[in-house]
Order: sequence, then structure tokens, then C-alpha cells
Amino acid sequence: MTAQVPDAPDGGHGRPVPDATVARLAVYLRVLTELRWAATGPAAPLGHPRTISSADLARLAGVKPANLRRDLTFLGSYGVRGVGYDIHLLTTGISAALGADRSAPVALVGLGNLGQALAGYAGFGGRGFRIAALFDADPQRIGRTVAGLVIQDIGDAGRVCREAGIAIGVIATPEHAAQPVADVLVGAGVRSILNFAPGVLLVPDDVQVRRVDLALELQMLAFHEGRRADPAPTGVAVSS
Amino acid sequence: MTAQVPDAPDGGHGRPVPDATVARLAVYLRVLTELRWAATGPAAPLGHPRTISSADLARLAGVKPANLRRDLTFLGSYGVRGVGYDIHLLTTGISAALGADRSAPVALVGLGNLGQALAGYAGFGGRGFRIAALFDADPQRIGRTVAGLVIQDIGDAGRVCREAGIAIGVIATPEHAAQPVADVLVGAGVRSILNFAPGVLLVPDDVQVRRVDLALELQMLAFHEGRRADPAPTGVAVSS
Repeated sequence: MTAQVPDAPDGGHGRPVPDATVARLAVYLRVLTELRWAATGPAAPLGHPRTISSADLARLAGVKPANLRRDLTFLGSYGVRGVGYDIHLLTTGISAALGADRSAPVALVGLGNLGQALAGYAGFGGRGFRIAALFDADPQRIGRTVAGLVIQDIGDAGRVCREAGIAIGVIATPEHAAQPVADVLVGAGVRSILNFAPGVLLVPDDVQVRRVDLALELQMLAFHEGRRADPAPTGVAVSS
Repeated sequence: MTAQVPDAPDGGHGRPVPDATVARLAVYLRVLTELRWAATGPAAPLGHPRTISSADLARLAGVKPANLRRDLTFLGSYGVRGVGYDIHLLTTGISAALGADRSAPVALVGLGNLGQALAGYAGFGGRGFRIAALFDADPQRIGRTVAGLVIQDIGDAGRVCREAGIAIGVIATPEHAAQPVADVLVGAGVRSILNFAPGVLLVPDDVQVRRVDLALELQMLAFHEGRRADPAPTGVAVSS
């Protein structure tokens, strides 16, 4: 990797980047990675473009072009007017800015269907983390291998996380187990938790919890579908 | 349900609601529903409050209070200055506005670990949709029952979706199967697709695709964790 984030005359180091921009940068990185894969994979057409316009990248990422251009000012200048962005350079630039070339170890707790799906998720490579340890409380699961890792006893999580320097935990347990698991993880030094279980977790102020609600996107789709089926509703209207 | 969305002097019917507001309304609804459950469940403390301040609701939803107040103007007025929002009234108001009291039928394709987790997801009730049909291509899965529904042959999806009036599909297949499955769903009249598989789907312009990237939130956490471990980075800084 020779790419680096350049000094940015229009961006500048230390300028605070809003969370929304960080999230969109991650989406651009995913889109660009998929484009690069398409351009080099077995099905790649000859002469596949090496650049992408801001309009095309914005469309593929589902954001407004103005947002894209503003987001990229935080990285410095990667675009050439009339030519667009070099896909390889922009990919490595965003990757470095997001720290996606690092590999923070992550503990995953709860190896039911969701946990197994997460452990084996193909989209986790090159995103700045790696699943480093699996835990469950079920004796029938402990000792089994999932995605190349042996499921360990949640009772050993404190020692294992401390020894491996794990600071990020994923909770994919049923709701009733989520709080005790969070307590174990926090006691083991975990400072960031991604929670897939319903309900609110109580943690110390210096621990960050992000909640993934698998129903949210489907709820949005159902809402829009309802608007389509009933274009003159009594409730709210939606801009596109 | 006697609740309705009142005529809103400060909001007004037909005023376009931004997608971001729709998404946040869905988050408020989830938080309020969880609060109501906590207030009425077996562990409910006596005298649990029936109202919530905008500051508390904003904090639980992870949004800025100013955003919350602006979002709720689209519904009309549910708050009383100095008292806060009545949890029950606000819940039913948002629910009606989002159409969460409807129940749009959804087809789920791909009953691997992720699909099974989705089919059995506890957080799907009262969100405006219901999983109505399951499909897979694997003969070993077809005919099995998951979450009360029999897995059907993807080859029958066209007929089943048309007969059941299914307009929303969820793709939880491996990446290579996602495009052919999308083609089948679109041919069956599906107009909204939620895609959990990596990669870009090609669909007609009048079909809406939303992509769920299970890595995104974890990438955000890893990014923030990297900032904590290395507070003087060469890349971008983040506002809190």
C-alpha cells in the first residue's frame, strides 16, 4: 500500500468529520470495492473503466452528488474535473482515512442463526476489523467450529478478550441474555458494543453501544410501498 | 385503536417528509414500544412514568433534541411544555403515520442462517409488514417449516407472490443467487426489494432496492475505536 491521505488544502487534518460523513465514506468504500471486483473478476469486460464520475458514484451509493463531493473534501482532492475519480486511488484513500486497512479484533457472542450468519459474512473483509473470538453459553455449541473459529465458553470471555486485546464486541444473543453478556464484555475491557438484540443495554458512559435493528429497513420499504398503494394518505407524505 | 394523526397546525398534511425523518420516526417508534413494554412487563417498576421528555427520547434514540422536535412537527403536536410527550399517544401517532398498523405481506428468499434469523426475528411485530412466504432453491430446505411457515420452491415464487399480492421481497441468499432471485421477484410483481447479499442488483427503474450491509455498523465502531486508540491520527478526525 503506497496510498496515503494527502494534505488537503480544501479539507485539512483535524477538521471534525460528522458521523454521517463517516457512514457515507464507508458506503463509498463498499461500492468502490465492488466496482474493483467487477473490473478484475472473471466476468470483467475488457476495457472496464478505471475512473468513475461523482454522479455515477453518488447514484450507486444512493446519496446526493453534492453530499458526495462535500464528503470527499475531508480526504483532500481525488477528482480531476471532466475525468472523474481514479477508482484505485479513491479506494485506498478512503480505506486509509477510515482505518479500514487496520484489523481490530472483535468478539462475537451468540452463535444462533444470526451469529453464525455474521461469523460467516462475506462482506467483512477489508473493513477495519476481523472476528477474532466466538462465545456462547450453550454447552451444545461450545467447542464447535464456525467460520474457522472454535466457539468458546462465555465464562472464559473475560480472560480471552483481555489476552487478545479485544475492545469491540458483537451481541447476537436472544434479548434476555444481552444485558448479562454486555456486563461480561465491559468487565473484559470491551469499550464498543454492536447490539443486534432488541432492548436497551445499560453500560458505563465510556462504553459506546450501537444498535442494529434488522426491522428498520423493511419498515421503511413497507412505508414507501404503502404510499405507492395509497397515494392520498391521511398521514404524512414523503419526498423522494 | 382510536388514535389518529391530528390535523397539524405546525406540520400539515402533504408536506413532504424527508427520508431521514421517516427513518428517525421508525427509531422513535421502536424506542417508545420498548419503553411501553418495560412499563407494562413483569419487571415494570410501580409508578413508571407515562410521559417522556424530548431530551430523554432524543437520547434513547441517539438523535439531537432539535431533530426530534422538528421530526415530530410532521405529526402535529403531541407534547405539552414542561410535561413532555404522552408515551401511549405518541406511539400510536407515529405508528399510524408510518402505517405500522398495516401489515404488508413480505416474501423472504434464502433460508440459510441469515434467512432463518430474519424469519424468526422477534423485532418484526407491529412494524407495518409480516413475513408471508419463504422460498429457497435447495431441495433439502424446501418443505421444512421455519417460524411457522413452510419453505416453498423458488420456482413457485411467481405464482405465490401474485396470488398473495406480495409487493415486497427480502433477498438473503448468497451473492451469486441474488440477481436471478431479484429477476424472479420482479417478474412476480415485487416492487420493493431489501437485499442482504453483497453486490449491486439490476432492476427496472420502478423497482426500489434497499441494501443492508451488515458490516457497516461494525466498521463504524472499529473506526471510532481506532480514533480512541490513536487520538492523533494522520487521517480524519471525528466529531462526537
